[in-house]
Amino acid sequence: MPLRIVIIGANAAGAKAASKAKRMRPEASITVIDRGSFISYGACGIPYFVSDAVSDEKELMSTPVGVVRDANFFRKVKGVEVITETDVTEIDRQNRQVTLQTIGSGVKSTLPYDRLIIATGSSPVIPPLPGSNLPGIITVKSIEDAVLLKEMASSGNRACIIGAGLIGLETVEALATRGMDVTVVEMQEQILPGILDSEMAAILEQSITQRGVTVLKQCRVSGFGGGDRVENVVTDRGVISADLVVLAIGARPNIELAQNAGLTIGITGAISVDDHLRTSDPTIYACGDCCETVNIVTGQKIYAPLGSTANKQGRVAGINVTGGDATFSGVLGTAILRVFEANAGKTGLTETAALAAGYDVETVLSPAPDRAHFFPGAKPIALKLVAERKSGRLLGLQAVGSGAVDKRIDVAATAISFRATTDQISHIDLAYAPPFSAAMDNLIVAADILKNKLSGEAKGISPHEVKRKMEDESDDFILLDVRSPAEHEAVRIAGAKLVPLGALRDKLDSLPKDKEIIAYCKISLRGYEAQKILNAAGFTNVSFIDGGILTWPYEFEK
Amino acid sequence: MPLRIVIIGANAAGAKAASKAKRMRPEASITVIDRGSFISYGACGIPYFVSDAVSDEKELMSTPVGVVRDANFFRKVKGVEVITETDVTEIDRQNRQVTLQTIGSGVKSTLPYDRLIIATGSSPVIPPLPGSNLPGIITVKSIEDAVLLKEMASSGNRACIIGAGLIGLETVEALATRGMDVTVVEMQEQILPGILDSEMAAILEQSITQRGVTVLKQCRVSGFGGGDRVENVVTDRGVISADLVVLAIGARPNIELAQNAGLTIGITGAISVDDHLRTSDPTIYACGDCCETVNIVTGQKIYAPLGSTANKQGRVAGINVTGGDATFSGVLGTAILRVFEANAGKTGLTETAALAAGYDVETVLSPAPDRAHFFPGAKPIALKLVAERKSGRLLGLQAVGSGAVDKRIDVAATAISFRATTDQISHIDLAYAPPFSAAMDNLIVAADILKNKLSGEAKGISPHEVKRKMEDESDDFILLDVRSPAEHEAVRIAGAKLVPLGALRDKLDSLPKDKEIIAYCKISLRGYEAQKILNAAGFTNVSFIDGGILTWPYEFEK
Repeated sequence: MPLRIVIIGANAAGAKAASKAKRMRPEASITVIDRGSFISYGACGIPYFVSDAVSDEKELMSTPVGVVRDANFFRKVKGVEVITETDVTEIDRQNRQVTLQTIGSGVKSTLPYDRLIIATGSSPVIPPLPGSNLPGIITVKSIEDAVLLKEMASSGNRACIIGAGLIGLETVEALATRGMDVTVVEMQEQILPGILDSEMAAILEQSITQRGVTVLKQCRVSGFGGGDRVENVVTDRGVISADLVVLAIGARPNIELAQNAGLTIGITGAISVDDHLRTSDPTIYACGDCCETVNIVTGQKIYAPLGSTANKQGRVAGINVTGGDATFSGVLGTAILRVFEANAGKTGLTETAALAAGYDVETVLSPAPDRAHFFPGAKPIALKLVAERKSGRLLGLQAVGSGAVDKRIDVAATAISFRATTDQISHIDLAYAPPFSAAMDNLIVAADILKNKLSGEAKGISPHEVKRKMEDESDDFILLDVRSPAEHEAVRIAGAKLVPLGALRDKLDSLPKDKEIIAYCKISLRGYEAQKILNAAGFTNVSFIDGGILTWPYEFEK
Repeated sequence: MPLRIVIIGANAAGAKAASKAKRMRPEASITVIDRGSFISYGACGIPYFVSDAVSDEKELMSTPVGVVRDANFFRKVKGVEVITETDVTEIDRQNRQVTLQTIGSGVKSTLPYDRLIIATGSSPVIPPLPGSNLPGIITVKSIEDAVLLKEMASSGNRACIIGAGLIGLETVEALATRGMDVTVVEMQEQILPGILDSEMAAILEQSITQRGVTVLKQCRVSGFGGGDRVENVVTDRGVISADLVVLAIGARPNIELAQNAGLTIGITGAISVDDHLRTSDPTIYACGDCCETVNIVTGQKIYAPLGSTANKQGRVAGINVTGGDATFSGVLGTAILRVFEANAGKTGLTETAALAAGYDVETVLSPAPDRAHFFPGAKPIALKLVAERKSGRLLGLQAVGSGAVDKRIDVAATAISFRATTDQISHIDLAYAPPFSAAMDNLIVAADILKNKLSGEAKGISPHEVKRKMEDESDDFILLDVRSPAEHEAVRIAGAKLVPLGALRDKLDSLPKDKEIIAYCKISLRGYEAQKILNAAGFTNVSFIDGGILTWPYEFEK
């Protein structure tokens, strides 16, 4: 009898596992069961369908050559049976069979398996608040959600998005692009909490509010008002009128089936699997959004559901379920998004996460054009590197800006995967020509600054720390603007003294040696030069503001 | 007495070394001597100045905030003395001094040094052919070249570019953009020899000829004709009329000074240095285009002059010359360029180079959109991976297409630096959202295919090999097109039998089991599926054409 493989869930992980398993063992009988009508769709594309960048929802479930990945496709092309609109209500591990229930008719049946893959995915979190089931309140997960959201996105109407995470902000762009008046509400002190440190989030937030979107932080939702449908969102900062509410406060793994079957659930609340994606039952595997994984940097278990991870895991589960030997060693928590003109991403640990994990870190903020600065179309990006102080090992990178942040994130993800030090990163032979990067790529420049900071040659001070000093109103430090008079005239940090870098060597007498001097410029390279000039002249307490004007997250004087 | 550092050459490497050395040892006296009038300019930007993408040559020698990096800038900002328009005619190692000669006046002087850095750069190769000194024949190296080239680039006139390497092709774009009628002449059988394997070069060549540029390969120049100025290029394939000729056949290191001083010259013909960039004289360092380096993959010495390398090396030399301890371990031979809409790049070894170095390799050709295929603006790129068969270690990546090839090249450069295997690469947590990549990035898909090929699951056949079989006119194989009838109708490889993948399982009887079957589709994924379906049905001699239609470098039937 051929090997009988049953897979629960026919989206990214399940569909991939089924296809791979069939290619590995053509004689196996493979059945995939899904509760939805649509399978193998790109849920990550939903915001772009809503914004009309993608016109037909079928494009989200088609192959690159335009063939819809439906049950017939899987049967004909992949040799895999897919049963849709059917719930799996029970896993009977004793008898190795699952109970199916057709959603419309309620008819029950059983299906035996030799090997089972659980790929039940995740569901959007619905907060248990008054009114949260009112019509007009939707999530961003299924094709049905997508179609509904697109229908409801009417120009001029008001949308309120709850949660300024990845999906929330992608939806902000989608609905604002459709002409809606958009407010996004975030419980934390910053947007993209957990993904960006606060000063990087502030840069992104600026670009979002510039597009007319209202961002409310530290704002807690207590319920939803309305009659036939939602009319407003009740928060601790007032009532927000809304014709449409999108819940984007996170996802939880669909573990009920696994839990009821007695499979081990991990500390993150998702299904526990080993590096072969085996659950606590050796005949059952799990992959995709329903299971937890490992953060490669910290070695800790994390729950990080993502389409790219689901695809990779599906392949591994598909190999192992047919007797192969593939491993999935974990993730870096890499994330990226586009919101209007801005891109933002991270890989590895933020400073916040690194400190929480007990690392002693050094960081750098480095803004620069993403190509040769003279090349037309060069766009700014700001990088934040986080390194372990003792070893110099890169722990994480964040990048925000209108330029190519994805390239730097991907290079850093690769480097972190191999436990690269900042010194090693600064020497990578990255591709250089003016349309693609500067001669010293942004990441290499940032790594060099970090090396200078780690060795004590460069002394940076974070914008936060400078702001704190300013708020203390102490007069024991001098803010030194070393840019040109024209730059100083246009915009400056309040209270700064102007001495252009080119004049600094001649004007050392105008500065007091007994005070702390904090230099700054546009991006921090001239600030660093100023520090070195002053150090050489006997000034001992000199630093420069990390990232200069370009990553200063507070107000300016103009 | 302060440390006296003399640096010969004030471009990328020399200027960087001077600035870094001064920051390391502010009390040092640092003097930089350059024979040119312009210093610290971005020679790599010249084609974009010629095309008018960059309007003013000053932009090529300015800081990102628009300050011209001239002698005054280096004095005021960097604390470094720069002497321009001055030749160094001799290095007197015995007495640790160099002889200077002012170019205009011929006045000679000497300058003592404690440490010397040679950063004399490279010069374009001028072939010793009749007429090669005629006016109208120029190279692409100096600011003076750039200004002359821009003046001479007249719409409607004919330009002939000798050499289809990086600089030659960038100049093709520049002059064609200015409206010139451009012919590029290449001695080798393909464009970008040494940078791309021939099938990848063919893809790029197509996109260049589509823009009306004439590409002549295997064409040897024997001289230049003309009276007051150049009028034509004489080749073994006829005489090419030209109002402007650009020589772009390579660069040679400027080693005369070092050679006359008795310093060791390496087997590549460039100055030999150790990993601290020290020459054979421990008080003399060399960096940038004048010295050789190491190919990290093969461990062999190579000459690979590049602006990015020069900058990195300048930093290392600047640290070491002041008593620091920095190393430069080598390069991957990474290269990239844009020509019109196409981008092309490589890192590590091409298949040709890997075979020449004695590696047993497996390769894959993988074309795909650079973003989620449904995302507007997704553009195709073709990847070619070269891996060592036994270890699975990635040796090189080539990428060609209108999409973001630079990201994949940089990720691969990072991976190769850490001796990554294709299995490791396939699991890197690269950043995914539809505007940036597919859920499985192109590089991960390509790595997965390569893993399948290395394990014997997938059996690819190169376009070259298929073409050879077709030319043999043997009838012992069947070309099987598994695309849709519409795709087959539009364009196909001559003689192919159409069986769409979705119908293949039902039409197995229509195929002979005793013949070799070579399947193909658009990108090779359906071709691979077909191979697996046929294998499962008992067909033993089945393969798919690597890269499918999209990387087929030969003619089609339409």
